[in-house]
Amino acid sequence: MTNNAWMLPDQISDVLPRQASTLEGLRRGLLDLYQQYGYELVMPPLVEYTDALLDDADEDVNLRTVKWADAMTGKTLAIRADITPQVARIDAHLLNRQGVTRLCYSGSVFHARANGLLMSREPMHVGAEVYGHEGLEADAEIQTLLLASLRLCGLKGLRLDVSHAGIVRALLSRAPQLASATDEVYAALQAKDAVVLRALTIGCDHDVCQGLLALLDLYGGVDVIARARALLPVDAVITAALDDLSVLADLDTSGVLQFDLADLTGYHYHTGVMFAAYCSGAPSAIARGGRYDHIGERFGRARPATGFSLDLREITELMVFDKPVKAIRAPWLMDAALRAAIDVLRANGEIVIQLSDDASVEQDAFVCDRELVSETGVWSVRSL
Amino acid sequence: MTNNAWMLPDQISDVLPRQASTLEGLRRGLLDLYQQYGYELVMPPLVEYTDALLDDADEDVNLRTVKWADAMTGKTLAIRADITPQVARIDAHLLNRQGVTRLCYSGSVFHARANGLLMSREPMHVGAEVYGHEGLEADAEIQTLLLASLRLCGLKGLRLDVSHAGIVRALLSRAPQLASATDEVYAALQAKDAVVLRALTIGCDHDVCQGLLALLDLYGGVDVIARARALLPVDAVITAALDDLSVLADLDTSGVLQFDLADLTGYHYHTGVMFAAYCSGAPSAIARGGRYDHIGERFGRARPATGFSLDLREITELMVFDKPVKAIRAPWLMDAALRAAIDVLRANGEIVIQLSDDASVEQDAFVCDRELVSETGVWSVRSL
Repeated sequence: MTNNAWMLPDQISDVLPRQASTLEGLRRGLLDLYQQYGYELVMPPLVEYTDALLDDADEDVNLRTVKWADAMTGKTLAIRADITPQVARIDAHLLNRQGVTRLCYSGSVFHARANGLLMSREPMHVGAEVYGHEGLEADAEIQTLLLASLRLCGLKGLRLDVSHAGIVRALLSRAPQLASATDEVYAALQAKDAVVLRALTIGCDHDVCQGLLALLDLYGGVDVIARARALLPVDAVITAALDDLSVLADLDTSGVLQFDLADLTGYHYHTGVMFAAYCSGAPSAIARGGRYDHIGERFGRARPATGFSLDLREITELMVFDKPVKAIRAPWLMDAALRAAIDVLRANGEIVIQLSDDASVEQDAFVCDRELVSETGVWSVRSL
Repeated sequence: MTNNAWMLPDQISDVLPRQASTLEGLRRGLLDLYQQYGYELVMPPLVEYTDALLDDADEDVNLRTVKWADAMTGKTLAIRADITPQVARIDAHLLNRQGVTRLCYSGSVFHARANGLLMSREPMHVGAEVYGHEGLEADAEIQTLLLASLRLCGLKGLRLDVSHAGIVRALLSRAPQLASATDEVYAALQAKDAVVLRALTIGCDHDVCQGLLALLDLYGGVDVIARARALLPVDAVITAALDDLSVLADLDTSGVLQFDLADLTGYHYHTGVMFAAYCSGAPSAIARGGRYDHIGERFGRARPATGFSLDLREITELMVFDKPVKAIRAPWLMDAALRAAIDVLRANGEIVIQLSDDASVEQDAFVCDRELVSETGVWSVRSL
């Protein structure tokens, strides 16, 4: 055994007591919130057949997924890099309902390669999904629920940037010569890089070229929608997408809704309204979500779907951890009267920690502000 | 993509809404219980270097652990098959305290091969550990906490069988010729197989042979200890072990403590008092635990340690799942007055589920016993 058997790999870490209790509190608060909206909790497994977890199209998720030959079945298994496809599988096959299904989840995923230099390879995802409803009511509910989630976490400076996967897809459908450069176009849009975008679109229809370049400036408040109608080519798909965004703007009561028509991270699987949430202290989006109406397709049942997920590990790292909880210190003796006194205190919801007299108190999660002492054989609590 | 992308491997399964909410309720109840005893929550990662997770000695855990070469570091990583070594690593290196440290955890583990035909390959472990205290107070607390855990889960017909790793170890130390047959001796004891045990011990000292055979009948109530003193050879280690069991018997207030001196599952790492919990409806032990005082050794810090773990997935499968929770059905309209009415209900702790008028209601976790209706423009709740 090596001398440094205690070392963890880079970008993999333990969650220690104060962060853990903070994270557990948020996890419970979020799942309770989702329950209040009618979301049913599911717990898909950590490991599945690779076929169920991966869509052939998404090379990025493929590279982030650890796979191996299973000792019991000989087939290829993988650790989930994302829980969303698992929840879609549950909606499509296990529940197999006709009506609207709302599901939520909480669990760790693992990435073969971290998403970024400062990102954990083991995000703790919490998320919610609506299946079976194609109306904008579902998009609005999911956006409301994400904002309520981030507020429950105590994050400040919230902003929700909304976009629509249909707009760029409509522009690209008018430029067949860009078919082999789709990823590059999306990357240039994401980076708001006009130089690259101009180079990529040389030879394209003027409308397409101007439309893609216009997207780079189409971010900000609700006026973005009117500006988009003026700047983008007249196209039924684009008009419908902008109409969707306009309805969401009208419905918004949060005051933090904005638009960024060039932010299309996750365009591989998104099909309609998409969004990214930002907050103070985090350089990139703290949560993302949107429509992916075809997600159940490879499970034989393509239902309308929209949802979001967030990483509780990342969120707690932005937070001041919960304060230690107040507790009562008690001696660690084998004494029936002491034990009875402790049982009564715990039954009343108190935390009682038994420690030998000489033991130093080194908890991170607790602070003993009282102690249990015996005077003339009667155990009572006094302040410390 | 295959047509059956929705299939899960054998012995891997989803936890669907009613089981999931039952499991989540137990998880919270258990972690709250451990908090009341002063246990601090930690969350070790799913994946670590193989060296940190595996003790070279334990071939059984080795075979159950999935490993692969890491794309980022080139080293061998593994999914945890057990959380206990991770918590010992946290005690030894991250917290690095001198005094008593109580830690608890909850999380999934994964097994390359299932522990049994009916066992899940992905148990959901919940457990508690005490580090830094070698007195029997720690053993007694851990046993009390395990029984309180199982009662909180609503399990019936509880029994806690206590044993001691020192007894067989002392007998085997008197029979050097059995050194290469240690595993077989333990297996014969576990199976209570006198024929095999007699064959294995041919040629051994009479005391050892008779002592090992005597263990097969040393199970039952507190009288087991007195019988053991009469039947086992006079040996300082054995006497000390029986003294320990006697103290625990005196301390017991649960009324379900028994002894089974031949039950030594996990003897590879246990060093002192060991125990296994049984309940109605489960053919084998529902939880196990005990002392493993050297567990921190390969992390450079061998502290006294005792603890237990249980599998919430297995336990919920023995239970009647929680009943669906009562909820209020509301129409799914984009209406400001409706939205305000729903916000008030949710702020009061109600579950409100918005559904289109024609939508069938198919939740498993909720039952709508009321609905929100508009009469003359005012939204109010009425019974269904």
